[in-house]
Amino acid sequence: MAPTVTAFAQSPDRGRGLARDMAVRWALEEAGEPYEVRLLSFAELKEPVHRAIQPFGQIPTYEVGALTLFESGAIVFHIAQRHARLLSDDPDARARAIAWMFAAVSTIEPPIVERSMAVLLESEKPWHVERLAMLDDRVRNRLSELSHSLAERDWLDGQFSAGDLLMITVLRRLGGSGLLEEHPNVLGYVSRGEARPAFQRAFAAQLAVFSTATDKG
Amino acid sequence: MAPTVTAFAQSPDRGRGLARDMAVRWALEEAGEPYEVRLLSFAELKEPVHRAIQPFGQIPTYEVGALTLFESGAIVFHIAQRHARLLSDDPDARARAIAWMFAAVSTIEPPIVERSMAVLLESEKPWHVERLAMLDDRVRNRLSELSHSLAERDWLDGQFSAGDLLMITVLRRLGGSGLLEEHPNVLGYVSRGEARPAFQRAFAAQLAVFSTATDKG
Repeated sequence: MAPTVTAFAQSPDRGRGLARDMAVRWALEEAGEPYEVRLLSFAELKEPVHRAIQPFGQIPTYEVGALTLFESGAIVFHIAQRHARLLSDDPDARARAIAWMFAAVSTIEPPIVERSMAVLLESEKPWHVERLAMLDDRVRNRLSELSHSLAERDWLDGQFSAGDLLMITVLRRLGGSGLLEEHPNVLGYVSRGEARPAFQRAFAAQLAVFSTATDKG
Repeated sequence: MAPTVTAFAQSPDRGRGLARDMAVRWALEEAGEPYEVRLLSFAELKEPVHRAIQPFGQIPTYEVGALTLFESGAIVFHIAQRHARLLSDDPDARARAIAWMFAAVSTIEPPIVERSMAVLLESEKPWHVERLAMLDDRVRNRLSELSHSLAERDWLDGQFSAGDLLMITVLRRLGGSGLLEEHPNVLGYVSRGEARPAFQRAFAAQLAVFSTATDKG
């Protein structure tokens, strides 16, 4: 039985693969698991029927049989735990990959999202320029630490893992900011992720949703 | 072999159990696993020897045998996976508890930390009052959604789990803000967590570190 993933009917990122269904699609593609997609309008996200499975009125969710899950990190983990190419069978390597999964969503992503929200919601505020400089520096600190840790390796810890998958998904949100470009090894790391066939299939699938919605008007 | 956890030699929270070693201590106490603690000064956190195991120069870390881990969420998961009282043996219940773990650190915690940082670092800025109101509303939205999802239940999904442990640890950072008090069921939920004997042992252990440091210095 194929799982069903929810995604935006009209993604605000205009098909750039920055919405949170992207990590789930990518993980499913790496795992070679087929899936169904149910598209939701912004109004539907906030309705009780969706909130019953996603308390915060967001995408994605993951439904298979009697199980419904939310939180892209948790969904990626759920998929990854059955596939050694996403989470190693070696217990220590697996634990370290899970550490990078949490680092992606809880250490690297928050300052990136904060910066995006400031650009989106506070650009007319009198404090915007001063605050954006602060936020840029917070992101820079994290990127510098990540760059140091990654060094010249291809992936964060040995083989590609679900930790890389989430980290690269999070880092892609910085596209256009110029901040990734300050660390060529991090930029190369993101590019290696984007070059994976599974990434490209996932990206094409989410782009097709946006393009179809746009064609329909 | 008992694991070693790192913690602040002098916690900036003054022993209120808000530093990130608290969740790890609590999980170890729930699991009934003894552990060692290695205390680090702020200077030691930023040194290469610590960064080699914690790329972002933070606490806690978890070391046992050849394994070193960072990220409190990942460390709690590592402990919890072997204990049914923290992560159910039922695969679906386990997956849902993991979803709440990710929700705690990636959906609930970021706006709470952002608010704390604004209080700490931006209170002299001309924008502080207007921005704090925005940040309060972001936290309020999340608490309202969490309150709705929790309803009148004791825990987020059936039995107490590592999801509750992380969620309650994160919510405790709002102590003193008055925001938790707007949702009596969430306040009661936090109190239920704090009343657990394992929580109290963990709390006493971190408080003892702070008290000893204060007596000495």
